[in-house]
Amino acid sequence: MSSNKQAGESKPLVSVIMGSRSDWATLCAASEVLTELGIPHESRIISAHRTPDLLFEFASNAEARGIRVIIAGAGGAAHLPGMAAAKTVVPVLGVPVQSAMLAGVDSLLSIVQMPKGIPVGTLAIGKAGAANAALLAAAILGGTDPAMRERLHAFRKAQTDKVLEDTL
Amino acid sequence: MSSNKQAGESKPLVSVIMGSRSDWATLCAASEVLTELGIPHESRIISAHRTPDLLFEFASNAEARGIRVIIAGAGGAAHLPGMAAAKTVVPVLGVPVQSAMLAGVDSLLSIVQMPKGIPVGTLAIGKAGAANAALLAAAILGGTDPAMRERLHAFRKAQTDKVLEDTL
Amino acid sequence: MSSNKQAGESKPLVSVIMGSRSDWATLCAASEVLTELGIPHESRIISAHRTPDLLFEFASNAEARGIRVIIAGAGGAAHLPGMAAAKTVVPVLGVPVQSAMLAGVDSLLSIVQMPKGIPVGTLAIGKAGAANAALLAAAILGGTDPAMRERLHAFRKAQTDKVLEDTL
Amino acid sequence: MSSNKQAGESKPLVSVIMGSRSDWATLCAASEVLTELGIPHESRIISAHRTPDLLFEFASNAEARGIRVIIAGAGGAAHLPGMAAAKTVVPVLGVPVQSAMLAGVDSLLSIVQMPKGIPVGTLAIGKAGAANAALLAAAILGGTDPAMRERLHAFRKAQTDKVLEDTL
Amino acid sequence: MSSNKQAGESKPLVSVIMGSRSDWATLCAASEVLTELGIPHESRIISAHRTPDLLFEFASNAEARGIRVIIAGAGGAAHLPGMAAAKTVVPVLGVPVQSAMLAGVDSLLSIVQMPKGIPVGTLAIGKAGAANAALLAAAILGGTDPAMRERLHAFRKAQTDKVLEDTL
Amino acid sequence: MSSNKQAGESKPLVSVIMGSRSDWATLCAASEVLTELGIPHESRIISAHRTPDLLFEFASNAEARGIRVIIAGAGGAAHLPGMAAAKTVVPVLGVPVQSAMLAGVDSLLSIVQMPKGIPVGTLAIGKAGAANAALLAAAILGGTDPAMRERLHAFRKAQTDKVLEDTL
Amino acid sequence: MSSNKQAGESKPLVSVIMGSRSDWATLCAASEVLTELGIPHESRIISAHRTPDLLFEFASNAEARGIRVIIAGAGGAAHLPGMAAAKTVVPVLGVPVQSAMLAGVDSLLSIVQMPKGIPVGTLAIGKAGAANAALLAAAILGGTDPAMRERLHAFRKAQTDKVLEDTL
Amino acid sequence: MSSNKQAGESKPLVSVIMGSRSDWATLCAASEVLTELGIPHESRIISAHRTPDLLFEFASNAEARGIRVIIAGAGGAAHLPGMAAAKTVVPVLGVPVQSAMLAGVDSLLSIVQMPKGIPVGTLAIGKAGAANAALLAAAILGGTDPAMRERLHAFRKAQTDKVLEDTL
Repeated sequence: MSSNKQAGESKPLVSVIMGSRSDWATLCAASEVLTELGIPHESRIISAHRTPDLLFEFASNAEARGIRVIIAGAGGAAHLPGMAAAKTVVPVLGVPVQSAMLAGVDSLLSIVQMPKGIPVGTLAIGKAGAANAALLAAAILGGTDPAMRERLHAFRKAQTDKVLEDTL
Repeated sequence: MSSNKQAGESKPLVSVIMGSRSDWATLCAASEVLTELGIPHESRIISAHRTPDLLFEFASNAEARGIRVIIAGAGGAAHLPGMAAAKTVVPVLGVPVQSAMLAGVDSLLSIVQMPKGIPVGTLAIGKAGAANAALLAAAILGGTDPAMRERLHAFRKAQTDKVLEDTL
Repeated sequence: MSSNKQAGESKPLVSVIMGSRSDWATLCAASEVLTELGIPHESRIISAHRTPDLLFEFASNAEARGIRVIIAGAGGAAHLPGMAAAKTVVPVLGVPVQSAMLAGVDSLLSIVQMPKGIPVGTLAIGKAGAANAALLAAAILGGTDPAMRERLHAFRKAQTDKVLEDTL
Repeated sequence: MSSNKQAGESKPLVSVIMGSRSDWATLCAASEVLTELGIPHESRIISAHRTPDLLFEFASNAEARGIRVIIAGAGGAAHLPGMAAAKTVVPVLGVPVQSAMLAGVDSLLSIVQMPKGIPVGTLAIGKAGAANAALLAAAILGGTDPAMRERLHAFRKAQTDKVLEDTL
Repeated sequence: MSSNKQAGESKPLVSVIMGSRSDWATLCAASEVLTELGIPHESRIISAHRTPDLLFEFASNAEARGIRVIIAGAGGAAHLPGMAAAKTVVPVLGVPVQSAMLAGVDSLLSIVQMPKGIPVGTLAIGKAGAANAALLAAAILGGTDPAMRERLHAFRKAQTDKVLEDTL
Repeated sequence: MSSNKQAGESKPLVSVIMGSRSDWATLCAASEVLTELGIPHESRIISAHRTPDLLFEFASNAEARGIRVIIAGAGGAAHLPGMAAAKTVVPVLGVPVQSAMLAGVDSLLSIVQMPKGIPVGTLAIGKAGAANAALLAAAILGGTDPAMRERLHAFRKAQTDKVLEDTL
Repeated sequence: MSSNKQAGESKPLVSVIMGSRSDWATLCAASEVLTELGIPHESRIISAHRTPDLLFEFASNAEARGIRVIIAGAGGAAHLPGMAAAKTVVPVLGVPVQSAMLAGVDSLLSIVQMPKGIPVGTLAIGKAGAANAALLAAAILGGTDPAMRERLHAFRKAQTDKVLEDTL
Repeated sequence: MSSNKQAGESKPLVSVIMGSRSDWATLCAASEVLTELGIPHESRIISAHRTPDLLFEFASNAEARGIRVIIAGAGGAAHLPGMAAAKTVVPVLGVPVQSAMLAGVDSLLSIVQMPKGIPVGTLAIGKAGAANAALLAAAILGGTDPAMRERLHAFRKAQTDKVLEDTL
């Protein structure tokens, strides 16, 4: 099982998976924020429907591989985040990809409305959600990693300063 | 792998699966119509999220077991029909179970909006959809089973006659 | 009743019907997959609202003509699949065509929410749904046609391999 | 073709049709208003899906029978009004019956979103819509029937007076 | 009160009103069909919100002016059809204009969900609905005008023939 | 024009109007808050559709009568707030009443989606919205009435204290 | 706290705030109408999520600074209007900005569905809503400012005249 | 700042907050799962709209108090999770509470559609979502707490076994 993309030299802490290459246009926003925050991560194409065995193998091994957070993006009848969560106790964050027909409402409901027992922490539809999944992963890692938490505080401060400096 | 419920003495041709026991209140309508049409079938609880390995085992073996149609019902972020379809080329019919919060809209979109490559034939939300899944299974079997087709014609005629006799 | 388009030399096993020529942009995806899988089929324009008699004649004769699956696509207040199903016991698969105004939500609900008694197996909105209708038709035929089932398995394997080879 | 219910001794000018007996709980509001306004009418169960031939026969003969307005009520994937309209040039008014699952949104969209060429004048979901269909039928008849128009004016005046007298 | 546009030399039988000039891009489809069917009509801009007095004056006088059907199109919080209907017993047909933000769902619900007592016969969102409003107006007039009914039958036949001749 | 209900001896500053007596179950929450804050007000039944002339007379006279805020509640195709606003420059606040069929979505969109030129300040669906309309009216009056503003501050403080004292 | 934009030389009576610079494309319509009506106002970028402390400081001081109306626009999970309202008794008008994914439905519901106790008067999605927020602010100020009311009457009259002069 | 409810003797690692006491009927499911998994936690009423200062104080101090995950539940225009997230880098999980009018769609969109920069991991509407928020919190803590992870594995195994034992 070779990685498609890996950022940083260390072993990945976060795994960004998506159902098809076209989802990368959305999920790249997660990878960019993870890189910006210096979080080692991998980005891979895994389809719940077209490569179900790969998905099960991936999710089953994530804990042993030291993956701390899985970010899973998919569109339409989006089963990737929920099925990954069904096969691991590593936290799974779901990113609804905007669908061609229903603007991502189908993606959102397919991801967020998980039944009791298997949670997926769902972010907003599209790139904003992908970027926020990375920030939430950082917040999760920051709980026991003071340096990461400092980087998050710095990220927040820069973000606030940017708004304060904005003029109409 | 023991069956939960099996109707008829013959080997099942149709397998009715559902995510939890509470879904039986909906899916029983499928079983009733299958029984009425004399179609050997089984009814089982298989949860995509809580028993993913069982689902994969079930779906992988369905073809070899001689299952001709799978009827899968689930609610909310309903992944059961789509994930069963991902693991078999046996036709899968999906029944959206009415969800507590969103009236089954989430169930419907999670089932019907499958990406290109893995089809699920989706019926209406709730018991009407479950009954119709059984009728569609009968129609599928009827394609090469003249006796079954005759029973379907008789079912339709009785149905039409009943409306014709209805008075206000 | 002359065919509009017929693929393959054999008598058609699948009939693809649609409400207007503009729906061909969606339904062509069904025809393409049927051709790819070597399934003899025809493609025709039949409008439930503008040619209701033709629809009834077509649906009444489908069984006798040896049609094994009808794929019906329509948009807006989409009555074509349901009314075809009302006049035949041949399995009908419905493809909601994206509507100009409501993104296909009206098409989807008009097709999938059939009352108990007359089933339509509904696929996703748009071209993905059209392609999947063809795959579901192949799965239905494959139930008693081992060669077809083999072609479906090959199709699935190629599809899986393509995802496995995809890189970001 | 015998009537289910006919009000008044004269030949019916308005025909109220509905897909099943359960729809009478909604459509009775149309019949009541028609009776109140002294409009001869009939009320019948005709199902687009379960009695398609009866529907076509009914709609084809409506003009010759002197029916001036057809009020058609149905729920879910509601095809009755649109298919009646496809077979007659008598004005068809559609009443979306509240569906069990989707509150009548499916009924409404299935009725109102007719394609160019075959119109259905659609009223509100439920009993208010049924009553208003009767009032609109009266307005249509009133165009060339001064006595009917007078009764409508009186109905309106009484309605206004009732509100004016209402106190909190 | 001068007309904005009047088609034909005779006194108008149908009045097409709309809330703003931009709605003409939708409502022109009504005018075109009325012209095609030889129905004398006028087309006017009347805004429920910006010219409420003109609306009341218009609606109050419609009956006396011999207007047989009012076609009213508006978008967003579309009050024009309902308020016209509140001031006349002439039949009012409503055309939801596609709104910039909500694709006409707001327009549709604002027009169709009228309370018991004041009916508006609502057509589909957009130009298809506008054209169909004209066809429904013709059907209404045809109830007592055999020549009009003949023209409608011819229109229908041409429409059916056109579909029958369509090829893929 | 006699008032239906008037609270306080002074001339009313706020007028609470609603389309039918059944809306009082919702709008009473506005009256209660107004009374609690000591704001003289009246509550009346005025129907846009069934008493359009009364509505126009009421709205035209509101400014001269010293009404400072109009609170208008209605359900379904809710035209009351928008049509009141069309006939006065007194601020109009709209309260969507929960509709029987569509949970108030139709009411909300009919009220809030007003076109440019005639504003309605819209509150939440149902009793919460009615109470908040009263609070917003108080805030409007408070802009030039220091005593009113003090009462609002006290109301807010009590509200905050109540939450602070709440225990699970 | 320096203003981003201030129109007129007098102290601002209305404050237009928005979550990001991109919202200016919508909110500029409020500023333009305020300018047209001669209402001194300021326009500022304040983000509920990225500058929460600035928001609280701004809202807490608004009353003391003589701000009479706050117009707050935001998109997506739009918390700006509601949180401003939570910190002041100055009337807050909310403008839902059209969101990239859900056409502003999320913005609208996030703003209008405030719980009992903290009101936000909500306008239509997008620029029409922004312009109307300014008109409602003018109406609020006009309650005790006869000159402002006169300008509003003139604005309305010009608006009416423009429609009356429009021709098709 | 005294806690409302605290489970376990240790300092709380998870804080469950909700906008009003009525939300406890939903959020209690989070507390129950946390207790079942032996996770020290507190449950408190904090209203974004009625106690904004308390919310800011709470969120600002959460990191220093050692809170590792905040679970925030709210309904309607649900601003609690997003505003808590705006004031802390501790991970915030949002639970949409079913609203009286819109079935929780407003709550869901208000929570999940956060703009880029401030993430909220959103769970399903209602009690299932609340229970899953607790499970996701456990998964987050489990990343660096092997004993917690073991308890999660045991919870999952018990859950799977329960389904396997279920019979129809």
